Amino acid sequence: MTALDTFLGWLDVAAIAVFAASGALVASRKQMDAVGFVLMAVLTGFGGGTVRDLLLGRTPVFWLGAPELLAVCAGVAVLVFFTAHLLESRFRALLWADAVGLALYAVVGAEIALLAGANPWAAVLLGVATATFGGILRDVVCNEVPLILRREIYVTAAAAGAATLVVLQGQGVPRDTAVVAGLLVGFLIRAAALLRGWSLPSYRARPGRDYPDGA
Amino acid sequence: MTALDTFLGWLDVAAIAVFAASGALVASRKQMDAVGFVLMAVLTGFGGGTVRDLLLGRTPVFWLGAPELLAVCAGVAVLVFFTAHLLESRFRALLWADAVGLALYAVVGAEIALLAGANPWAAVLLGVATATFGGILRDVVCNEVPLILRREIYVTAAAAGAATLVVLQGQGVPRDTAVVAGLLVGFLIRAAALLRGWSLPSYRARPGRDYPDGA
Amino acid sequence: MTALDTFLGWLDVAAIAVFAASGALVASRKQMDAVGFVLMAVLTGFGGGTVRDLLLGRTPVFWLGAPELLAVCAGVAVLVFFTAHLLESRFRALLWADAVGLALYAVVGAEIALLAGANPWAAVLLGVATATFGGILRDVVCNEVPLILRREIYVTAAAAGAATLVVLQGQGVPRDTAVVAGLLVGFLIRAAALLRGWSLPSYRARPGRDYPDGA
Repeated sequence: MTALDTFLGWLDVAAIAVFAASGALVASRKQMDAVGFVLMAVLTGFGGGTVRDLLLGRTPVFWLGAPELLAVCAGVAVLVFFTAHLLESRFRALLWADAVGLALYAVVGAEIALLAGANPWAAVLLGVATATFGGILRDVVCNEVPLILRREIYVTAAAAGAATLVVLQGQGVPRDTAVVAGLLVGFLIRAAALLRGWSLPSYRARPGRDYPDGA
Repeated sequence: MTALDTFLGWLDVAAIAVFAASGALVASRKQMDAVGFVLMAVLTGFGGGTVRDLLLGRTPVFWLGAPELLAVCAGVAVLVFFTAHLLESRFRALLWADAVGLALYAVVGAEIALLAGANPWAAVLLGVATATFGGILRDVVCNEVPLILRREIYVTAAAAGAATLVVLQGQGVPRDTAVVAGLLVGFLIRAAALLRGWSLPSYRARPGRDYPDGA
Repeated sequence: MTALDTFLGWLDVAAIAVFAASGALVASRKQMDAVGFVLMAVLTGFGGGTVRDLLLGRTPVFWLGAPELLAVCAGVAVLVFFTAHLLESRFRALLWADAVGLALYAVVGAEIALLAGANPWAAVLLGVATATFGGILRDVVCNEVPLILRREIYVTAAAAGAATLVVLQGQGVPRDTAVVAGLLVGFLIRAAALLRGWSLPSYRARPGRDYPDGA
């Protein structure tokens, strides 16, 4: 256990907590009971890291030996259950919790992939997978339109954060500096997308050439 | 192979068979052909146990070496294909098949997790995951509203069954007694939810504070 | 590395490329940006093979060590982003790309399962899983009705292709002949389904016995 492992470890816990909060907020949108809040918090909080561990072959997955992480998710879920009505907008809160988790997990996932010996491209992809799968699970299970389908920049922010980490480390920048830089890049891009509606040019069929489902 | 392993083994097969039936019943709702019935039966019947094995790192997964389990799913699917029209309500049958499978897999999943050395909390969570993932896969692939989103108690029943098993075994109660107790607790809670509409207090936004999607 | 491994390897890359194209075409239906195209291409292209590897316990999964496959998906995604508007119907193109991928992955997945020591039934099932999961992920994440729910033959084509391979090899037919035969059977059945609307008899509730959702 080095200081950095501990630092990464804390970022990991932070990602789990904010994703758990986003899961509990979706549970509030679906008017679930308290157990449903805990389930959605756990599913969203553990989802990304579980996919990462499965893809890397790191089993049993991390949370089987970590009851304290389960307590974090359950605690967040109960907190949201009793306080969500105080929020101005639960949907805005959900978007911001998701944004913080996205940046955290993109960087943590990419770093863990590098430590496991993945090549740089695979590390970026694994960072993106870690950052997005918890939210995808949350939205699919709850029958919501996945956030990645929304117009503002989303996946790009995760990819940029992970790529920043990977490139800086490849240039010899110390690990914790690279981690912080990746976090800032990922979060600031997503924050700009949320605050200013930033988006990349999207595909549009030319008028008159769009097609009905059965065309 | 002890007697209990055999007992657990039979419960496992029973869980697979009833979940396979629930999958085939959803296939009937979607008016699939016979091959679609088999696919949905296999997906639902094997889904929960497959997720459990992947999370524990038990690969190759159980059904790769067990053609007889595949035969069970296929047989159930064909049976449902030819007899489902005799049912008073296929949707009620689906709910009850799912309820039996939920109780069985919650207990079997938690027990297998304990045998694999998981801590008690993780064992309960793994029991819940084993019990719910087959149904989630079934509903998501078929574009149905997942049963876990319905108002009556669902996840709570699985968690209670798994927790009963884990707590009783922790108290030194013999394994098969604990298994039967867990099964009864899980099934009776879910049955009460289906018959009497039992539900826990669910989250409700205060009037006037609910929000539109983009708020 | 034998010649067949290379042949299988090429079929694998071809399956990844056509599924990547189908993913990018769905991204065009959802008017995503270029990064969304790449994500959908990667998710669909790698999805089936990833599920296959996880079920067999072959981790880390194949694409973590293969940046060239990532380049294939990204290249296909960019190509589709800039040329999809030239297509007569993007939905028809999606159906055909999916059909080619379905046949390829059914055979490749079954063969890899046999090489890993699976029994014949499990090999067919794993071929079907490999062939269908990329498309299921693509459609579920994008909130589209999964292709497997459509009326024309779909899963049956994958199962027939995989079964042809497994049966022929069991009869002592040389491996590459069996692979080509499986490919042809799988693709031609799916092609007939697309061109002529072939379907198997599907389940229908008798009139007056269908039921409302809550029945």
